[in-house]
Formats: sequence, C-alpha cells, structure tokens
Amino acid sequence: MYDQLQEVLGNIKPVDNSLRGPIQAHLDDLTKPKGSLGRLEEIAMKYVLATGSDCPILKKKKVFCFAADHGVAVEGVSAFPAEVTPQMVYNMLNGGAAINVLTRHAGAGLDMVDIGVNHDFPDHPGLRKCKVRKASANMAEGAAMTVDEALQAVMVGIDLAKEAYADGYHLLATGEMGIANTTSAAALFAVLLDLPVESITGRGTGIDDSMLEHKISVIKRAIETNRGSLSTPLETLASLGGFEIAGICGLILGAASVGMPVVVDGFISSAGAVAAMKLSCQVSDYLFFSHLSNEQGHKIIMNKLGAKPILDLDLRLGEGTGAVLAMQVIEGAIKIYNEMATFSGANVSERQ
Amino acid sequence: MYDQLQEVLGNIKPVDNSLRGPIQAHLDDLTKPKGSLGRLEEIAMKYVLATGSDCPILKKKKVFCFAADHGVAVEGVSAFPAEVTPQMVYNMLNGGAAINVLTRHAGAGLDMVDIGVNHDFPDHPGLRKCKVRKASANMAEGAAMTVDEALQAVMVGIDLAKEAYADGYHLLATGEMGIANTTSAAALFAVLLDLPVESITGRGTGIDDSMLEHKISVIKRAIETNRGSLSTPLETLASLGGFEIAGICGLILGAASVGMPVVVDGFISSAGAVAAMKLSCQVSDYLFFSHLSNEQGHKIIMNKLGAKPILDLDLRLGEGTGAVLAMQVIEGAIKIYNEMATFSGANVSERQ
Repeated sequence: MYDQLQEVLGNIKPVDNSLRGPIQAHLDDLTKPKGSLGRLEEIAMKYVLATGSDCPILKKKKVFCFAADHGVAVEGVSAFPAEVTPQMVYNMLNGGAAINVLTRHAGAGLDMVDIGVNHDFPDHPGLRKCKVRKASANMAEGAAMTVDEALQAVMVGIDLAKEAYADGYHLLATGEMGIANTTSAAALFAVLLDLPVESITGRGTGIDDSMLEHKISVIKRAIETNRGSLSTPLETLASLGGFEIAGICGLILGAASVGMPVVVDGFISSAGAVAAMKLSCQVSDYLFFSHLSNEQGHKIIMNKLGAKPILDLDLRLGEGTGAVLAMQVIEGAIKIYNEMATFSGANVSERQ
Repeated sequence: MYDQLQEVLGNIKPVDNSLRGPIQAHLDDLTKPKGSLGRLEEIAMKYVLATGSDCPILKKKKVFCFAADHGVAVEGVSAFPAEVTPQMVYNMLNGGAAINVLTRHAGAGLDMVDIGVNHDFPDHPGLRKCKVRKASANMAEGAAMTVDEALQAVMVGIDLAKEAYADGYHLLATGEMGIANTTSAAALFAVLLDLPVESITGRGTGIDDSMLEHKISVIKRAIETNRGSLSTPLETLASLGGFEIAGICGLILGAASVGMPVVVDGFISSAGAVAAMKLSCQVSDYLFFSHLSNEQGHKIIMNKLGAKPILDLDLRLGEGTGAVLAMQVIEGAIKIYNEMATFSGANVSERQ
C-alpha cells in the first residue's frame, strides 16, 4: 500500500507555467478592463493551469463528505455528544443537512463516506462504506491510529478521487463530519505547521472559555504523548489525525495525481490539505481554499500557507458547506473564461 | 413627479423587528451548531425581515443594468473613450459581456436600461428604452442634469422595480455601464458622505498616476462649480450624478417601497444606494451590499455606512457582476432557511 501511495505522489506533476502567457493574453482580450474581474481571473488562471487545457470544462462537480468518530471525544472537548456523528450522517443521507441544501443549490453531487464512524449503517445509495475502523483511539493517551490504518484511510480518498475522475467529474470538494475533529485538526496544524497550540485552537461547535482551556491542554497532552512518532507527515496523521482528515488528504492527492482541481472546505479540511501538502510539494497547484473559517486560527493557517480563501462568510460548520459555495464562484470564473466576447469579436474599442 | 417620489418614500416602511425572535429561533433549531453558518444566517434574517414573510421565496431574480454617458468624459478622466458605452451595451445585448455570463450562471434575468446613452439603439427585447437625455452635461462646468431630469431618471428606476415586482420577481440587483462614471460616483460620495475627494477617487478602468491626479482635480472643480446646488440629495444627484446612478437610486427606492430586497453591485451602484439612503432612512433594511470593490475608497464608504459586503473578490468591473454572484449566496441562505431539517425532526441530539 505504501508503494501505491508513492506512485500517486509521483504522478502529481507541476503545472505547465509556459501556459501562463497565453492564458493571461486570453483573459486580457475579454471585453473588460484588464484585471477588472480580480479573483475570478486568478481562479480561471489556476483552474486552466491545473487541468492543462485551454478549453477548460467544469460541469460535473461532487462533494465528498468524510465522516468519522474520534476517540479523543471522551476527553470532553466538544459541545456536542459523540452520537451526533452518526445522527448527522443519517440527516445527510435523508437530505436535511446544510451540505444537502447547498449541494442541491450548486448542482453538485454529494457522497457521504463512512471512513470511521462508530456505528453500523445500513446500505444507502448516498453512502460509501469505506470504514477503516470504528473511531480513532484517544490521541491524548496514544496514537489515534496505526500508520497502516492512516495509510488505508488515505488510500480510500485516493481511490474515490480516481473513481470520480473516471466517472467524468471535473471538480471535487472536501467535507467532513466528526464530533471532536477540530481537536484533531488543531493538533495536526500545531505539529505540521509548527504553530503554538493556543493560536490555532478554537471553539469548534461552540465551547465556553473553560472548555477551550481544557481542549488546549488535551491537545498539548496528545502531542506530548505522541512525541516519538511525529517524524513524517503520515506518522503525524496516524498519531493525531482522524480518519476523515486522512481521507481528505487522500482525496486531494488522488485528484491532483490525475490533474483534477479540488476545493478545500474550512478548518478540518485544511488539516487534510496541509498533510497532503507535506506529502507532495506540487499539490497546492491543484487546491482552491474555499473560505476563511470563523474557527480561531484558520486565518493564521491560511497566512502561513500563503493561501487566499475565496470567501469569507464567518462559516464554521464544515461538511463542505464553504467549499460548495466556492464551487459556484469557480464555475462562474470558468464561464467567464469560456463565454465572454473578445474586444475584436465584439467591436469594442480598447483603451486609449 | 415630485409628489410621486414623496409617495414612494412614504411607502418605505421600517421592517417589523418583532419578527427577529421567531426567525432566530428557527435558525437555531436547524441541524447545525448555533450561528455556525455565520453570514448566511445574517443574510437569511435580513431577507426574511425585508419581505416580512417567514416562508421567504427567492426564485425569480433580475439584474437591471443602467447605461448612460457622462459629459465629464471630455475632461479625459477615463482610460477608455466614451464610444465604449454604446459598444458595451451592444455587447451586452449580444450576450458577450461578463454580466451576461454571470446572469446565465446564476439563473437571473438581465434587462439593459438605456437611461442616458449618447446613441440611438434599435429595438431589442433585452433593452429598455428609458432615455432621459443623451448623456449628462459636463459637471465640471455646471450641473450634470437639471433637477427635473434627475427626478425623471429616479422615476425610471422606481417604475422598473414596481413592474418587476408585479411580474413576480423576488430579488433585484443593480448594475451599470457608463464611461467616466467612477468620476461622477466619487463626486457624489464626497458630498453625500462628506469624505475627502482624494480618499474615494480611484483608477476606474485603469488610469495612471497623472490621470488620477487630474481626475481628482476635475472632481474638486465639479464640486466647487456646483457648490450652490448641493443642498438636497436630489439636487446633489442632479449636479454631480449620472443618469444611471439616479436610475439605480430609483430602482432601490421602488423595490424597498414594495418590500422587495435589492442587491447593490460595486462602487457606482453604491453611489446610487447612498443617494437612496439619503432620501429614505428606512431603505437600508432592504439593501444587500454585494461585494467590496477593488476601486479605491469603496472600503472607506462601506465602513462609513456600516455595511458588510458579502463578497471580496477584488472586482472592479461593475455591470452588476458582483451583485449577481452575491445573489447566489443569498439564494443559498434562503434555501438553508427553508430546507434544512430541525434537531427534533431529524432526531439529532442538541448540545450537552
């Protein structure tokens, strides 16, 4: 399995920067003052470079929402009980969650992925049964998962991305559901980006000051407990990660390996993205960070990565909600690139 | 005609703030942590309050793109020649401009409104012929229009809003096209919001430093020349305004008078919104500022108004492009309000 991962990483190619000139020339020839569509032009440039096609297509879009439970939930780090993870998965399968509403709105598909929920789900057409284990172990007392399990979860994401590509999808987005997963994500950011735990630990679903202090101490304990096994990105993911975060990391790697762009949701998804970026220095060419989360620390993380999220709507729900809203903006940008008239074609005078 | 305007202003009612409690209770009962959808929840609150219906409908959407020429263009304040105004109107009628692409993307209608272009257009199903005059006069040498003409342009917007409401539209957006109209808008902001001309004069379609300096001096001259006739909002609009800005002002007033929300595009549209806000202190309850323009000074203006634009994409094109992108976010927010499951309905546990 480790060889398979290495093969995927080897397939992630740098984009062809010689295309920048022609892409920019086309953008500048559209009937608007140069650069006046700002971020839409940057997005179009990035998408065209990622896909390597100057006739970019963006029709089929899908969100993969990875769900998993976290052993660390027993430490009392979340405002909601752990049983909410499977309850919310059922809500999503029934079409009642925010991500269902927004994927319908954007015309995007949605696959729920059980990659580690502590519950046996019946078969359902919207559910991918890819469970690695029923919940991670409590990272405050040892590794959240074995390196083999982490690798297995990453491969789940890689396989889903490749399958979606084979099914004709053009753009994927990440999403997640898992009570206590901001705790896992914060621990990963602290180690992978070398950031102080306090600066990137937030209130998640809404904890108070004393719980926040407790959450910080749990994260510090988890990092201390696992200190001996944080030397590689994969080991770190195993020690501190959730299964959904490893799955997101894999989805990103798999998509990039076939030249398909991916939209990263908020705080948790960014942890999966950071793990992917640590495994492949090319992968960021394929990533759109969708929104600046309201979760404390996301801004620090985005700055550290030099990322400019597309939206800033004070969201802190996850599920893929910010990513699917950003998909609509990206789709608009690609339509601008493909459908606008040129100065000469429309008989519009250029600047004096 | 002045009596008609007064009647419209009298019909703009404050929203019923007693609805806030029930609306918030519904938002808090949806299957997500309280407040975790951030701005989407604020947007839903505002929309429901504006329409006064707790079963808000948002299906039919339309952008009105007002086009006009500006006498002040002869002062050499724009990077593009004045003939671009009618050329771009033709481009829009042919479906090749950015606003065409983005209205199609959002499923919104688009009406082009000739309210003051220096050109005779043939009939076209997408064109509303509402010309008040062929271009405003050069405001640097006198009033851009008479008060009667300004009033006439405001009434054009009011009538279009009322007609759209009668046709079953739920949400309107403003847009504009008019070479030199950032000059007019900046002059209006300076007077109506008492801001230094330098702070709110930007590069428009892309002028260099020396042209920017010249543009500032032209605006100062226009304000000085018209100093004696800037005592009311309508007089100010006549002295410094463009016909499209007056039309946008009217569209906003007309929509608010029938309880229909309006999405305000960028820099120029904000000038129309400010004029409307000076004419009616209730109108802001019906306004969504769609995006923070990249045009210098828009941030200062938004801060002065206490407005929080929905998007920040470095756009500076106008036409309604930012407004129609924000319409998709607003539509998402209303679907969240209408379609999400509740905690009790979905059997999801509430917070501990």
